[in-house]
Amino acid sequence: MKKVRIGIVGLGRLGKKHAENIAFRIPNAELVAACSIVKEEVEDVQRNWGIKYGYTDFSEMLKNDELDAIFIASSSTEHCRQIEEALKAGYHVFSEKPLGVNMEEVIRAKEIVEQHQDKVFMLGFMRRYDASYAYAKKKIEEGAIGKPFLIRCYGLDPVKAVKGAIAFSEKSGGLFLDMAIHDIDLARWYLGSEAKSVYAVGSCYAYPEFKKYNDADNGAALIQFQNDAIGMFYAGRTCAHGYHIETEIIGTEGSLRIGTVPQKNLVTIFDEKGAVQECVSGFLERFEQAYVAEVQEFVNCILENRKPGVVVDDGVKSTEIAYACKESFEKNKLVFLNE
Amino acid sequence: MKKVRIGIVGLGRLGKKHAENIAFRIPNAELVAACSIVKEEVEDVQRNWGIKYGYTDFSEMLKNDELDAIFIASSSTEHCRQIEEALKAGYHVFSEKPLGVNMEEVIRAKEIVEQHQDKVFMLGFMRRYDASYAYAKKKIEEGAIGKPFLIRCYGLDPVKAVKGAIAFSEKSGGLFLDMAIHDIDLARWYLGSEAKSVYAVGSCYAYPEFKKYNDADNGAALIQFQNDAIGMFYAGRTCAHGYHIETEIIGTEGSLRIGTVPQKNLVTIFDEKGAVQECVSGFLERFEQAYVAEVQEFVNCILENRKPGVVVDDGVKSTEIAYACKESFEKNKLVFLNE
Amino acid sequence: MKKVRIGIVGLGRLGKKHAENIAFRIPNAELVAACSIVKEEVEDVQRNWGIKYGYTDFSEMLKNDELDAIFIASSSTEHCRQIEEALKAGYHVFSEKPLGVNMEEVIRAKEIVEQHQDKVFMLGFMRRYDASYAYAKKKIEEGAIGKPFLIRCYGLDPVKAVKGAIAFSEKSGGLFLDMAIHDIDLARWYLGSEAKSVYAVGSCYAYPEFKKYNDADNGAALIQFQNDAIGMFYAGRTCAHGYHIETEIIGTEGSLRIGTVPQKNLVTIFDEKGAVQECVSGFLERFEQAYVAEVQEFVNCILENRKPGVVVDDGVKSTEIAYACKESFEKNKLVFLNE
Amino acid sequence: MKKVRIGIVGLGRLGKKHAENIAFRIPNAELVAACSIVKEEVEDVQRNWGIKYGYTDFSEMLKNDELDAIFIASSSTEHCRQIEEALKAGYHVFSEKPLGVNMEEVIRAKEIVEQHQDKVFMLGFMRRYDASYAYAKKKIEEGAIGKPFLIRCYGLDPVKAVKGAIAFSEKSGGLFLDMAIHDIDLARWYLGSEAKSVYAVGSCYAYPEFKKYNDADNGAALIQFQNDAIGMFYAGRTCAHGYHIETEIIGTEGSLRIGTVPQKNLVTIFDEKGAVQECVSGFLERFEQAYVAEVQEFVNCILENRKPGVVVDDGVKSTEIAYACKESFEKNKLVFLNE
Repeated sequence: MKKVRIGIVGLGRLGKKHAENIAFRIPNAELVAACSIVKEEVEDVQRNWGIKYGYTDFSEMLKNDELDAIFIASSSTEHCRQIEEALKAGYHVFSEKPLGVNMEEVIRAKEIVEQHQDKVFMLGFMRRYDASYAYAKKKIEEGAIGKPFLIRCYGLDPVKAVKGAIAFSEKSGGLFLDMAIHDIDLARWYLGSEAKSVYAVGSCYAYPEFKKYNDADNGAALIQFQNDAIGMFYAGRTCAHGYHIETEIIGTEGSLRIGTVPQKNLVTIFDEKGAVQECVSGFLERFEQAYVAEVQEFVNCILENRKPGVVVDDGVKSTEIAYACKESFEKNKLVFLNE
Repeated sequence: MKKVRIGIVGLGRLGKKHAENIAFRIPNAELVAACSIVKEEVEDVQRNWGIKYGYTDFSEMLKNDELDAIFIASSSTEHCRQIEEALKAGYHVFSEKPLGVNMEEVIRAKEIVEQHQDKVFMLGFMRRYDASYAYAKKKIEEGAIGKPFLIRCYGLDPVKAVKGAIAFSEKSGGLFLDMAIHDIDLARWYLGSEAKSVYAVGSCYAYPEFKKYNDADNGAALIQFQNDAIGMFYAGRTCAHGYHIETEIIGTEGSLRIGTVPQKNLVTIFDEKGAVQECVSGFLERFEQAYVAEVQEFVNCILENRKPGVVVDDGVKSTEIAYACKESFEKNKLVFLNE
Repeated sequence: MKKVRIGIVGLGRLGKKHAENIAFRIPNAELVAACSIVKEEVEDVQRNWGIKYGYTDFSEMLKNDELDAIFIASSSTEHCRQIEEALKAGYHVFSEKPLGVNMEEVIRAKEIVEQHQDKVFMLGFMRRYDASYAYAKKKIEEGAIGKPFLIRCYGLDPVKAVKGAIAFSEKSGGLFLDMAIHDIDLARWYLGSEAKSVYAVGSCYAYPEFKKYNDADNGAALIQFQNDAIGMFYAGRTCAHGYHIETEIIGTEGSLRIGTVPQKNLVTIFDEKGAVQECVSGFLERFEQAYVAEVQEFVNCILENRKPGVVVDDGVKSTEIAYACKESFEKNKLVFLNE
Repeated sequence: MKKVRIGIVGLGRLGKKHAENIAFRIPNAELVAACSIVKEEVEDVQRNWGIKYGYTDFSEMLKNDELDAIFIASSSTEHCRQIEEALKAGYHVFSEKPLGVNMEEVIRAKEIVEQHQDKVFMLGFMRRYDASYAYAKKKIEEGAIGKPFLIRCYGLDPVKAVKGAIAFSEKSGGLFLDMAIHDIDLARWYLGSEAKSVYAVGSCYAYPEFKKYNDADNGAALIQFQNDAIGMFYAGRTCAHGYHIETEIIGTEGSLRIGTVPQKNLVTIFDEKGAVQECVSGFLERFEQAYVAEVQEFVNCILENRKPGVVVDDGVKSTEIAYACKESFEKNKLVFLNE
């Protein structure tokens, strides 16, 4: 079996999970190199999983001619630069979301990607590869709900992770860029249209710590799309019951809900509280299958010489809309996007 | 509007609820008289609801010629005797379940009822008048699940009521006669067949107090019906989450569940435990609507000169099966019923 | 028992239901008079339910000195005028929602009500008296979800009723005034705050017939409240699965959902489609209990000489916010409300 | 990383899935050899997945000294013989359920396994490794439901597979040996006790074809365990909505349900039928994760030199109980098992 040889950069919590998936769960991929600015992380991965090459310098890894593809799971601020460098060095590239942290570099990244049409570039909007989200897409395409005209998206982080979110606030880009961007991508995907107007509100209802970054602990946005479809978004960092990602798509003949209860598993507990369904604790638990499936798709695209469903423009457009939310929220005004 | 004038006997918790329903929730009924061996209960009802006649002696009430019908909600040991007396005195009769407390008096009651064909006699298997149970019946008759061949019935009392159940043990007739009898009636109703063999087991898993009455705190029975259909019954007195009445009917082309979660209302609470659906606390809460609907049906039957769906034979046959369960449980043997 | 003697005006579908409830389901009320401009409706009610007085002229009914209270269930355009007339004639008044059809008459009605402090005035926001909504309120007050900061409200009419909605379009006031107003009242009730900014969008996704009334078949609004809480509203007229009223209240320590699935009853059907929960078909089915409970509360308020929870200002404020939604939707702009 | 080198026998639907899992989803395993009496299956697997050795003769495969372990997924009639041969040849052995097809060979297999204590032997009761079943076990051990005293198990095959079941009837051993055996194993596992009495009933409600094999299309059993716990079992081959495996464990302080609705994924569809949850179609879909996890555990046991949770006696005892069910059903009598 032909295998795609991959070098990964970034070995934080999510990066390490990706590395493990590439090493062990993608039959036609091989994790050949791992890079991190944290030397211990590299050594750890090499030792435990028998990874051949280790780097602390990304540019060094790009010189390794045993590699076919680069997988970017580093800090968001590095994505655009590393995408450019890797594409120019002749590799296929997978980048975790977000594409970048400001519109300038995002647009620049798009240009670079478009200059390397012979390479596969894929962005990590993994939800599209979640079995339930993919099934919903299929049902919609089969006409199960008629024409979709409204989407409601909840993206809620567990309150147990709020300390980390506060610490990360300065770099995160805020609630809409950090969290709602996944939902914005989903909205564009399911509705097949781009945003034309945005109104976003929010506040620090429980954690005033976010205020100094002009951020909110919970916020919502109402987005009108160019085809007149409606997007209702709620992003929050204080979810008591766990990690709650819920999406509803309403069409002219029916509707679909994904994840109404973010159930941990198929167990229901009946006790003095009532009938209790426990919930997932975080994104790695909820999207375990999707994180494998997206990388599998990336690898398959390389081997079959085709383009993935998530392209660079999905990153550009989602970022643009997230910025509009941020602006609307900060200035308490309606923001119109250019067509 | 012509109204049926009713005298009620028995003003305990359920009796008082029935009295209230007759007085205020059945437009074409009038509560004219109330009888209880507890004088205070009679006075209380008369004073608060303006009931014209009060009695502490059942026979006295039967002499009141303003009455059309007698509603029996007294102790189970009184049912058969009062049914007979009331029918012979020329009244329509509604009796709470059970029909009686031993097979002899139950069969005698049946004979008496059959001798008074001109009178309406109805037995209080209220579940048949619950909106969900009635809807399930209708769906089955419409063919929604093909031919029903298996029924599973849970009848679970809240553990909060277990002290009362222990106190009542001596008179209750045991788990199968006291509790499973409702389920046995439902099984006969949905399956349209009578039992032919019974195996029942159980024990005192949490409350050894039941042992001295040869009773169990939880028990189950497997019943084979004459048409080969299967009945699976579970009755218990230690339900942590409340009052759990659940029924499932399985047919050759589908199945139906009633009350999978015995939800208190339409509220779901999401908190650190997960997604929580609170449950109903007891029979008066769960079957509030059914208790009104059955009496309404009784009254309508009188006014429209027709027979109700629940007849005396339903009481006889259910009691017979419950006794077979009791015998099987006590002797740990398979009991066959005569056809 | 002292009874409140009521005269009702309006005997359409909802009016007739109210009349029936007053006549038969409110023990301490008596339906003494019925009025409708449709003579047959009056005769029908009088004949079938034995109502003593019948009128086709509202002013005539007000001269009946056997009455204590007037129940208004006439066309929305009549509410304000009849409230005024009835209060001035010395009656307690219950009025169906909406309070009125324009801000002028609504404010005038408020003044009138305030001039008659000795009379009970109640507005028909029946949802507050629904067992599930009332339970949610109680749980919130007990602190179950911390401080509420976001409410999401769905108010969806069944597509089966869309022809009627189209026919009624000219008079309805549009999607936000006709339908979202219930949700707006709930939002104010649960959040304890008034709106400060509104953005509303919508379109005719399936029924262009609404366009000529400047109306939408589906629409959504994002409302920021004065306490910074968020309201997300979705109102629609094309719901395939029935009548879907769903409300979610999110707080700093948990959240509550009411009616996630607008289940018809406790039956789940398993067939080749999967596990199916059938849904309620309309408001009379969903809010049957609430329609009785609100009238019971009105009657109790009169007998106990106290004020109900829903006051005239709830009508004024909800109407004001619904108008802001309408304006925002029509002009595609952000609308700010004066504090 | 040290890898366990495995040879598999049996490449039918489930065997091929196991082969694929071993080859690609178990990092520390390597599929070195594949054996099937169907030559094309062997060639197919070798060619597509690059498996080094292929065999049509099981004994030949056992001579391959590159192997550490043998994975048996052949016909049930071969299991005992192949277990014996493989253990004697010095391999670790995993065998699909059932352990064997009659009590004699099952007991013989047990003796052989016990003579090879230095080898890992594991039986494929994969449900114990399903995330939800394992979680339920953990919760019970933590005391979440007090002491378990009742288990209810549903094992229902989709009606879509009934033709295959009829064709397979002669060899299957009947409903209880073929299907209920998984549930019987679960019951023993959760209750921690062995059966003492069994009553089983059933019939051909929809498919008379099963009659000539003395089999039923649906059947149920009530089992009393030595610790007085109760087992209620329902096995069927005519499930309209798919593959329905549901288990409920009831304890003195609460209860747990696993798979109340055998949901396909997290999508709920709302259409004119109501709120619809689609269901899984078969065991490979439902237990995809468990099939990987059990093999992973087998491999880990070999590498870590320890015994798995499912031992040969689980196979013996479950078979014994299933035979008691079969006997009870066939003779319509209560069957007692020796302690």
